Amino acid sequence: MNKLRRKQRIHVSGSNVVARPARTVAVGFAATILIGGLLLASPLSSSTGQYTDLIDAIFTATSAVCVTGLAVLDTATQFSIFGKIVIIVLIQLGGLGIMLVASLFSLSILGKLSLKAKITTQTEAKAVEGQDVKNASLSIVKVTFIIEGAIALLLAGRFFFGYGYDPGKALAYGAFHAISAFNNAGFALYSDNLVGFAADPWVCLPIAAAIILGGLGFPVILQIRRYARNRLKWSMNTKLVLVGTAVLLAVGTVFITGMEWSNPDTLGPMPIQDKVLAGFFQSVQTRTAGFNSIDIGAMHGATWLGMDVLMFVGAGPAGTGGGIKITTFAVLLFILFTELRGESAVNIFGKRLSRSVHRQAISVVLMAVAAVLSGTMILLVVTDFTLDECLFEAISAFATVGLSTGITPDLPPSGEWVLIALMYLGRVGVLSLGSALALRDKKAVFELPKERPAIG
Amino acid sequence: MNKLRRKQRIHVSGSNVVARPARTVAVGFAATILIGGLLLASPLSSSTGQYTDLIDAIFTATSAVCVTGLAVLDTATQFSIFGKIVIIVLIQLGGLGIMLVASLFSLSILGKLSLKAKITTQTEAKAVEGQDVKNASLSIVKVTFIIEGAIALLLAGRFFFGYGYDPGKALAYGAFHAISAFNNAGFALYSDNLVGFAADPWVCLPIAAAIILGGLGFPVILQIRRYARNRLKWSMNTKLVLVGTAVLLAVGTVFITGMEWSNPDTLGPMPIQDKVLAGFFQSVQTRTAGFNSIDIGAMHGATWLGMDVLMFVGAGPAGTGGGIKITTFAVLLFILFTELRGESAVNIFGKRLSRSVHRQAISVVLMAVAAVLSGTMILLVVTDFTLDECLFEAISAFATVGLSTGITPDLPPSGEWVLIALMYLGRVGVLSLGSALALRDKKAVFELPKERPAIG
Ligand SMILES: [K+]
Ligand SMILES: [K+]
Repeated sequence: MNKLRRKQRIHVSGSNVVARPARTVAVGFAATILIGGLLLASPLSSSTGQYTDLIDAIFTATSAVCVTGLAVLDTATQFSIFGKIVIIVLIQLGGLGIMLVASLFSLSILGKLSLKAKITTQTEAKAVEGQDVKNASLSIVKVTFIIEGAIALLLAGRFFFGYGYDPGKALAYGAFHAISAFNNAGFALYSDNLVGFAADPWVCLPIAAAIILGGLGFPVILQIRRYARNRLKWSMNTKLVLVGTAVLLAVGTVFITGMEWSNPDTLGPMPIQDKVLAGFFQSVQTRTAGFNSIDIGAMHGATWLGMDVLMFVGAGPAGTGGGIKITTFAVLLFILFTELRGESAVNIFGKRLSRSVHRQAISVVLMAVAAVLSGTMILLVVTDFTLDECLFEAISAFATVGLSTGITPDLPPSGEWVLIALMYLGRVGVLSLGSALALRDKKAVFELPKERPAIG
Repeated sequence: MNKLRRKQRIHVSGSNVVARPARTVAVGFAATILIGGLLLASPLSSSTGQYTDLIDAIFTATSAVCVTGLAVLDTATQFSIFGKIVIIVLIQLGGLGIMLVASLFSLSILGKLSLKAKITTQTEAKAVEGQDVKNASLSIVKVTFIIEGAIALLLAGRFFFGYGYDPGKALAYGAFHAISAFNNAGFALYSDNLVGFAADPWVCLPIAAAIILGGLGFPVILQIRRYARNRLKWSMNTKLVLVGTAVLLAVGTVFITGMEWSNPDTLGPMPIQDKVLAGFFQSVQTRTAGFNSIDIGAMHGATWLGMDVLMFVGAGPAGTGGGIKITTFAVLLFILFTELRGESAVNIFGKRLSRSVHRQAISVVLMAVAAVLSGTMILLVVTDFTLDECLFEAISAFATVGLSTGITPDLPPSGEWVLIALMYLGRVGVLSLGSALALRDKKAVFELPKERPAIG
């Protein structure tokens, strides 16, 4: 029927290697969400001592574990101190969990090693060298707590000296917002999120720094730490994430600041330096943190559409940020540039991009687009909100951003479930899909004679 | 600096082969639009004997030459018989022009031959065999006029017997709508487009047939004609377009009929068989014809979003339809399925998909998404319309569909220019880009050592 050709490879199934960790992650996240939801529903967690609606509690737990930050309830007033501690613990578990799992996946993928194998200096990607999995995990935890601790102290100092909080409250608030920021969670302890600090660089900049560091992803942070002065040792992954982050932050700052410059409900009334600070801060949030220091709901529809794109792209892989990931987007762009230049191999920073990555990037993006469009369509059907509102909220949930046009608190239960599904898919699904595709080493048994349809 | 590896190919620039015809097409279309616009602006073309606003005339000419069908003026009442003849001639020139150029490009690409070379039976794609370019062109013209003639007679008969038009008017109306339909142009001679015929299968079905045939593309039509009974000779291109068209029409019919079933302003008041006919007819329009037999503006926002996707995908390559093309979309889906199954080669209908096609498909889709999003964003900025309206209109223009939520006649000149640019880019740009990418045979001089970033 079909002629066998070339590569007569033996069929090597990789499904066991992949299915097991992916399933563990999926079940682990679901269980954490369920336990967190039950805790948050209990009267202990409520500031009024009443039970909280279970679906609202599960929504909040999902939003915390998936480090999204979308909220159907006002975190500041709804929850007791116990409830707030539950939320921040869920955020830390979710963020650290993803960092750990994704980094281990990623190290395995980049090094093409099984999860249990020692990561050696010979790995192609050079993300982590001379370390085994246990050391890598310890490094992740250490880096996390060092960064969170430093940011917490900075914020606590500002809250103490600048706002006259008593020392305990200043430390608690510093710690909560530092953890929330480094994990790209976007939860804040103020009813207006961080609008009250829009003009305060001593609050906004440390938070932005924590967000950016968390969004770079652990392999990048570790590689910068180890090879700060020897950029030749940086992997393609590190370079793409660093350059991509810088470009996206700059483009986002210019775009948001420019579009909202004279909007009387957002940047309009501010002096110039505050406009730029707030524009930069919102741009940072699209690296999927989700705090806001200006009213997102009052922004122009065109600003929302631009932020949709920035949020969809998201942050670096194996970090606390979401989205399809900067590397995925960059790979697609490089493929386009290569085609436009008429070259046959995609070269990035002096290395050739592995051809199987082309297909993985397409697959991740297609699944993401399908998830976002399906979610948006269901939201359109079950609510009376407009496309711009539903699309923004769906992308915010899927890319675990947490920015909101304001419709989330008013969603019917069916709408809440849509966002819960999108947050979970966006967090666990993209990780599992991306990793599963890349980890798998199954080869075609034979190759068929090739043919090409017309494109475009 | 970088080690040379394997394939030490000689640099073969294909830019001359490509740049010349692409430029000819771009200039040819622009010139036809300009001349058509001037003719339509003249008092001769107007039913009132007045000059028509030049931008409105150019918009109409662009819409006709790019076989889109978006209208800022009421074709039925604005134009004299001369003006209507200008429009239908522009449609025929645009449709035939694209068919000819795209088919010749496509034949060259599929057969990997230069435009002047004889197309032999040894071509991989087997789209056209034993024919040279002149014969292929004659076939295209012949097929066009045979199909248009047959549909025109069917429609004329219906107009004569069913609606009591006098014979001349019946023939003229039959010819106009047959040409408009086969060229996927969507222009109609009624102020409500084809809403008056929503329940008349004798009008709707011949028009739907002409649209579908035109949308299949010439290589497909010719191959079916030559090998009607020998499907083994059909190319991957033919099979993808046929299966894709059938699936998209079915999915679109079910989706639109289901979503609008009880909408009092669209399908709601109709008896069941009319609901299905109108739902099918609208589904056919998203293969980028752009007629409407129900009020698109009254549809549900979720229906619009679904139609956005259907329109964006569009029709077959080298036909009168627009969009990114069914083959492009199918290639992306097959890449996804291949990844999910963990296979290393993308096999479609028993043939392996050429790997360079992966990158071409990504490139076409990225450029299309960029064009649509940019257009939508500018429309959002220069008008007060909502995202769902602006996005629908931008996709309708770029995919040369011509369906409208109703905002096009109310656009400011800047908005009209956005749609003009999108129509032109969608028609000439996608063709040139797709063909240029595929025709070019430039190879990398050397390949760099490969590396892979993390995806997702
Ligand atoms: K977030
Ligand atoms: K059309």
